[in-house]
Amino acid sequence: MKVNHHALELEQNYLFSEVAKRIRAFQAANPSRELLKLSIGDVTRPLSRVVTDEMKAAAEDMSHAETFHGYGAEQGELFLREAIAGYYAQRGTQIAPDDIFISDGAKCDLGNLCDLFDADNTVLLPNPVYPVYFDTSIMSGRRVIFAAGTKENGFLPMPDHSVHADIIYLCSPNNPTGAVYSREQLAEWISYAKANGALILFDAAYEAYIRDPALPHSIFEIAGAADCAIEINSLSKTAGFTGVRCGWTVVPKTLRFDGASLHDMWFRRMATKYNGTSYIIQRAAAKVFSPEGLAAAHADIDYYMENAQIIKSALTAAGIHSVGGENAPYVWFEAPAHAESWDCFDTLLNQYGIAGTPGVGFGTAGQGWMRFSSFCTRETANQAAAYLAKL
Amino acid sequence: MKVNHHALELEQNYLFSEVAKRIRAFQAANPSRELLKLSIGDVTRPLSRVVTDEMKAAAEDMSHAETFHGYGAEQGELFLREAIAGYYAQRGTQIAPDDIFISDGAKCDLGNLCDLFDADNTVLLPNPVYPVYFDTSIMSGRRVIFAAGTKENGFLPMPDHSVHADIIYLCSPNNPTGAVYSREQLAEWISYAKANGALILFDAAYEAYIRDPALPHSIFEIAGAADCAIEINSLSKTAGFTGVRCGWTVVPKTLRFDGASLHDMWFRRMATKYNGTSYIIQRAAAKVFSPEGLAAAHADIDYYMENAQIIKSALTAAGIHSVGGENAPYVWFEAPAHAESWDCFDTLLNQYGIAGTPGVGFGTAGQGWMRFSSFCTRETANQAAAYLAKL
Repeated sequence: MKVNHHALELEQNYLFSEVAKRIRAFQAANPSRELLKLSIGDVTRPLSRVVTDEMKAAAEDMSHAETFHGYGAEQGELFLREAIAGYYAQRGTQIAPDDIFISDGAKCDLGNLCDLFDADNTVLLPNPVYPVYFDTSIMSGRRVIFAAGTKENGFLPMPDHSVHADIIYLCSPNNPTGAVYSREQLAEWISYAKANGALILFDAAYEAYIRDPALPHSIFEIAGAADCAIEINSLSKTAGFTGVRCGWTVVPKTLRFDGASLHDMWFRRMATKYNGTSYIIQRAAAKVFSPEGLAAAHADIDYYMENAQIIKSALTAAGIHSVGGENAPYVWFEAPAHAESWDCFDTLLNQYGIAGTPGVGFGTAGQGWMRFSSFCTRETANQAAAYLAKL
Repeated sequence: MKVNHHALELEQNYLFSEVAKRIRAFQAANPSRELLKLSIGDVTRPLSRVVTDEMKAAAEDMSHAETFHGYGAEQGELFLREAIAGYYAQRGTQIAPDDIFISDGAKCDLGNLCDLFDADNTVLLPNPVYPVYFDTSIMSGRRVIFAAGTKENGFLPMPDHSVHADIIYLCSPNNPTGAVYSREQLAEWISYAKANGALILFDAAYEAYIRDPALPHSIFEIAGAADCAIEINSLSKTAGFTGVRCGWTVVPKTLRFDGASLHDMWFRRMATKYNGTSYIIQRAAAKVFSPEGLAAAHADIDYYMENAQIIKSALTAAGIHSVGGENAPYVWFEAPAHAESWDCFDTLLNQYGIAGTPGVGFGTAGQGWMRFSSFCTRETANQAAAYLAKL
C-alpha cells in the first residue's frame, strides 16, 4: 500500500509545543512567580445557562422512545439552519437555509473542503496565517503561494493581479493579526477571484468580535460573493463552543466551477464521509441564536474585548505599535527594539512572566511580531498591562 | 479552480430514497393499512438513563468556569480511551489507550482515513457492501475490485491469492448480510494482506451483536493484525448513539507502510483536520463502558436480537434461505421464486405491508436478495413474522 506522500511533506509545527515547553521551564525556575498567559487561543468563560439548559433538555428527550433522535438530517437540522439564516438576516444578509451545512467546527470544514478540489490548483494564503490552511493544502498536494502582511499594509494583504491563484483563503477578523478587511477590500478580492476563475474560502470564525459597524461580518455582504465564495463559521469563539463543537459552512447553490456545482459536491461529500453533528449539540447551538443566547454571547465577547482594550492601550502607552484588538480578540504587536519574535517571547516571559505567542510561528511575515490573546481573566489583563506600561 | 473530478464520477445512490418513495406511494394508496418497517438501519430504542444523566452532569460542568472544558486532547480524552481499552481487555485483547483515536463516528473515520493513502492503490471490497467504502474510494480516485459474496460462501468472500490488492475493507458482522467471519477466516485475510503488503480496514461497528463465543469481535484478536490492520468502531449500534455521534479507530504504532507510521500520519491528519469530539459526548460515551452502561446496552441489543430471531425463524418456517440474524441485527434472505430484489421488495410491500431493503442496492452480488433489519419494535417483528409464515 502506498501512502499519501504529500502528508509526509508537512513539517511538524512546534509553535505551541515550544511555547508550552518554555513556559514549563520558566515555571520550574520561578515557582513563586505569577504566570500571565496571553498565549492562549481557547476561550475561558463557561457556557451560558440558556445553552446548557437546552443540552439537558435534549439529553432528556433522547432518553424517551417518543422523543428519541437517531440519524439526523444530512445537512443538519432545519431548526438550526433556519436560526443561522436568521442571524445573517439580522444584518440584512439573505442566506437560504439550504445553502447552510452544519458541522462539528470550522477547522473540520476547512480541512474537509479540500476533498472538492483537484490537486492541480494554486492556493494563495495570507502570511502570517492560521496554520490549518497551509497544512491541509500541502497534504492535498497543492502548490501554495503567499500574500505578505506587513506593517505598511496593516497585515491586510491585497491581491497582486499579476499573479494567478485558484483557491484563496481569507480570514477576517484575522487569526493571528486581528486585522479586519473593509467592504472595499473584500470587493477587490472578489474581483480578483472572478478574473482568475478562483474560489475564496472565507473564514469568519471571529466575526462576532467586530465592533465597527462599517466592517463586514460576512463575505456575502459584498456583491458577487455568491458566485465565488464559500464561508466557514463556528460557535467556538462566538459562544464558547471550543469543547462543544459546532460550526457551519455556507455553500451557495450559485457556485459553479469547472462545470460542477460545489453545493452538490459538498452535499455529497458530507453525506458520504460525515454523519451529522450530535442532535444534543445542534439543539444547544440553536439556543445561541435566541435573544437570551445572543445576549449571553455578547456579554462574554464584551468581557474579552475589554481585555483586548486594556492590553492594546498598555502597548500604545509604551510606544509599541500594534494592529488588531479593536474588532478581534487578538492584539498583534511589533517586538520592541526590532527584536525577533522568539527573543521577544523570552524577554516578556523571563522579565515579566507574560506568555505571548511568537508571530513567526504563523509564517515568515510574522517575524519580529507577537500575538497576545484576550481570552484571559480581567485580573490577568490588568496585571499584564501594568507590566507592559513599563516596557 | 479545477474540481476533484473523481468526486463527480460517483453515481447517485438512490437506494434509500427509492425505498422511501415506494413506501410513500404504498401509504398514499393504502391509507388504512399498517406499514411494517424492516427497512430501517437506524436504532429506535432511547438512550439509557446512565448515559443521559452523565450528559447532563457534563453540561452542568460546562456552565462553571472551574469545570469548563475548551479544546480537548487531540486523540480524545484519556478517560474515554482507557474505558475503550478496558472494553477490549474484557475479552483478553490488549489495546494501548494511545493507539485509540476518538471520533464522531465510524463513517467519518472510514471516509477520512482515505487521506492517508495514495490515489494509486487498488481497493478490494466485498460485494455486497456498505456503500461508503466504495464511494469514498472512488472520490479518492482509486481502482476498486470486488470479492463476491454468494449463497455458497455464505456471503463471506475469501481472498483470491492470484489477485493483488493494496487496501482491503472488511465488515464483520457484515452490513448488509449479517454474516460474521471466523477466526480462521480473518487469519487467512491477514495472511493475504501480509503477502500483498496490503492494509486491512476492519469495520467492527456491529461486534456487540455477536452471540457465538467462538466468533471474533475484533481483528486484533487474531495474530498478526497489528502489522496490517486498522479497526474502526462506534457506539451508534452498540449504545444507540446514531444521533449522538461517537466512534473510535485503533491504529497500532506497529503499523508501517511505505516507510511511514500510519499511527503518526493519522495523528497528524486528525490534529490538522479535526478538533475533537464534544466533551459532553465523550463523557457520556465513557459511561457506556461502565457496568450499568454495558448492562443497559446489552438489554437493548438483546431486544433487537430477539426481533432478529423472530424474523429469521419465520423465514425459515416459510422455507426461505437466510444468512445473518444470529450474530448481527440484519437478516439477509433469498427472494422467493428467484425473484429480483426490487420485485421482491414490491411484493412484500404491496401484499403484506412489509418494507425491506433490496439487496441489489448494496452491490451486484446482492441481486435476488433482501435485507431485513431488526431495529424495530417487538410488535412489528411479530406482525411481520405472522405474514412471512404465509409466504
